[in-house]
Amino acid sequence: MISELSILDCFQHLVDKKTDKLVVVGSGDDAAVIKAQDKDLVHSVDISKINTHFPKDSRPEDIAYRSIAIALSDLAAMGAYPSFISIGLTSDSPDLEWYKKFTSGVEKILSEYQIQLVGGDVTNGELSICVNVFGYAYEKNILRSTAKIGDLIFITGRLGEGRQGLSDWNKKAKSKYVEKFFSPKIDFKKSKYISKYASSCIDISDGLIKDLGSICKVSGVGAEIIFEKIPITNDINDLSYGDDYKLCYTCSPNFIDNELISGDHLIGKITSQKKILIRKENLFFDFKKNGWDSFA
Amino acid sequence: MISELSILDCFQHLVDKKTDKLVVVGSGDDAAVIKAQDKDLVHSVDISKINTHFPKDSRPEDIAYRSIAIALSDLAAMGAYPSFISIGLTSDSPDLEWYKKFTSGVEKILSEYQIQLVGGDVTNGELSICVNVFGYAYEKNILRSTAKIGDLIFITGRLGEGRQGLSDWNKKAKSKYVEKFFSPKIDFKKSKYISKYASSCIDISDGLIKDLGSICKVSGVGAEIIFEKIPITNDINDLSYGDDYKLCYTCSPNFIDNELISGDHLIGKITSQKKILIRKENLFFDFKKNGWDSFA
Repeated sequence: MISELSILDCFQHLVDKKTDKLVVVGSGDDAAVIKAQDKDLVHSVDISKINTHFPKDSRPEDIAYRSIAIALSDLAAMGAYPSFISIGLTSDSPDLEWYKKFTSGVEKILSEYQIQLVGGDVTNGELSICVNVFGYAYEKNILRSTAKIGDLIFITGRLGEGRQGLSDWNKKAKSKYVEKFFSPKIDFKKSKYISKYASSCIDISDGLIKDLGSICKVSGVGAEIIFEKIPITNDINDLSYGDDYKLCYTCSPNFIDNELISGDHLIGKITSQKKILIRKENLFFDFKKNGWDSFA
Repeated sequence: MISELSILDCFQHLVDKKTDKLVVVGSGDDAAVIKAQDKDLVHSVDISKINTHFPKDSRPEDIAYRSIAIALSDLAAMGAYPSFISIGLTSDSPDLEWYKKFTSGVEKILSEYQIQLVGGDVTNGELSICVNVFGYAYEKNILRSTAKIGDLIFITGRLGEGRQGLSDWNKKAKSKYVEKFFSPKIDFKKSKYISKYASSCIDISDGLIKDLGSICKVSGVGAEIIFEKIPITNDINDLSYGDDYKLCYTCSPNFIDNELISGDHLIGKITSQKKILIRKENLFFDFKKNGWDSFA
């Protein structure tokens, strides 16, 4: 078995990068010390586990990148920019090369988002990555609980690409979607922009229906969405499948500007009826029957 | 299988306790928002895993308490007081009662240390708890890397009690040590006091020899300790066994006051020779032979 120390050594160069003077005390002590900011701290925890969140034949660098990306997605959904992360890694790999590849994936995403690894822990066991992300609001935090009746509903990109990518990977098929699954891009620029306007926001990690459902539940509202307006990859199941990490947000019609109209997909509106209705012409989707039905 | 939502429900009342106005946005959103403090944030991650860090027949409330306590210990070792935590829980228990007991252990320790649970994640898999702890320095952070030659070495309590407790538990023996293993008390009062004086500090989680060794390594010094001065439970192996979570700190002889002398155990001093020497009268402990040898 590889020693904990030699695994931690693989991470050392990442923790030692103190370019932005964020870290007062880095790795090698009992805890990290992060410089005080005069801003509320936004913090989320996300566990990625082998077989549940990524297939067991995933490449270590992809596992690292994806686990961190999807954790960062929670910050974007809050209208917050990322600042630093820490990682609790459980792995049973006996191969030091595996850890080096894993850390190269960590390094890639740290560099892409200009964020800092401040610490973590490693232990032996079935592969699982507990990623802790930390950031600060661009303007104000966008909550889930503040959608209003009459607000318009937008999503920031196509659904079902991650689902398709995972399916292609499992079939060993080469496709552009595989990268969408393993390297989802988290759109912080968008998050910053909408934090000025949006009345509520969530990242689509569990599928549009469930995630928009979360907004509706905690806001005490419902939603009506127009099927034809939703950019999908395959079929209606793309609406109940996650792994895309696009944002779903609501916005008062008074605040809609050209940038929102041109950049995102207007898919429906918030209603007073406490349910989610998917419309297609004069049909609606019946979840119980798993098929379309007419309103009559 | 129990749904993620019903598990999260068990934690809800803990996250909702916003008594001290620390949490701006609590559970139920993409992330937690923690009120800005004008102080550097001290942060550590600690994974506790079944069979590695606690026996598989441990009670869920004990698992919760212990995982959090040993994570908090890292803050005490930094001269920092705890403020809030988050938890990444992986569990395969099919029993909702298990989660209720687990959260009762979480609640107990939150209440004891007057800290706040701000968020977390749950996933299905072999039992493992990734505990993230956050705090702030009492006066200044006590590092590992700042021990000086000639400093005195103290430990804050008896060694080997946790080891004895685990052994007793495994033998189903009733003993006062079992609680020492499952409910280690983290001495923040002491941490506060020594943060004024100590030149370096570590918590004894991996055993005195290894942990004092970490101080010596990063401080570029060595240590000589007097076996008879070390309060132990069983035998010399108590020095290389962790699980007690006492503090080991160094202090310049100029700063030693009566409180330190009366409260803690002076066990040796920092030397220039880059190794750890354990003395007993005119003998020293030979780690290779695993026995005592004379200096001659």
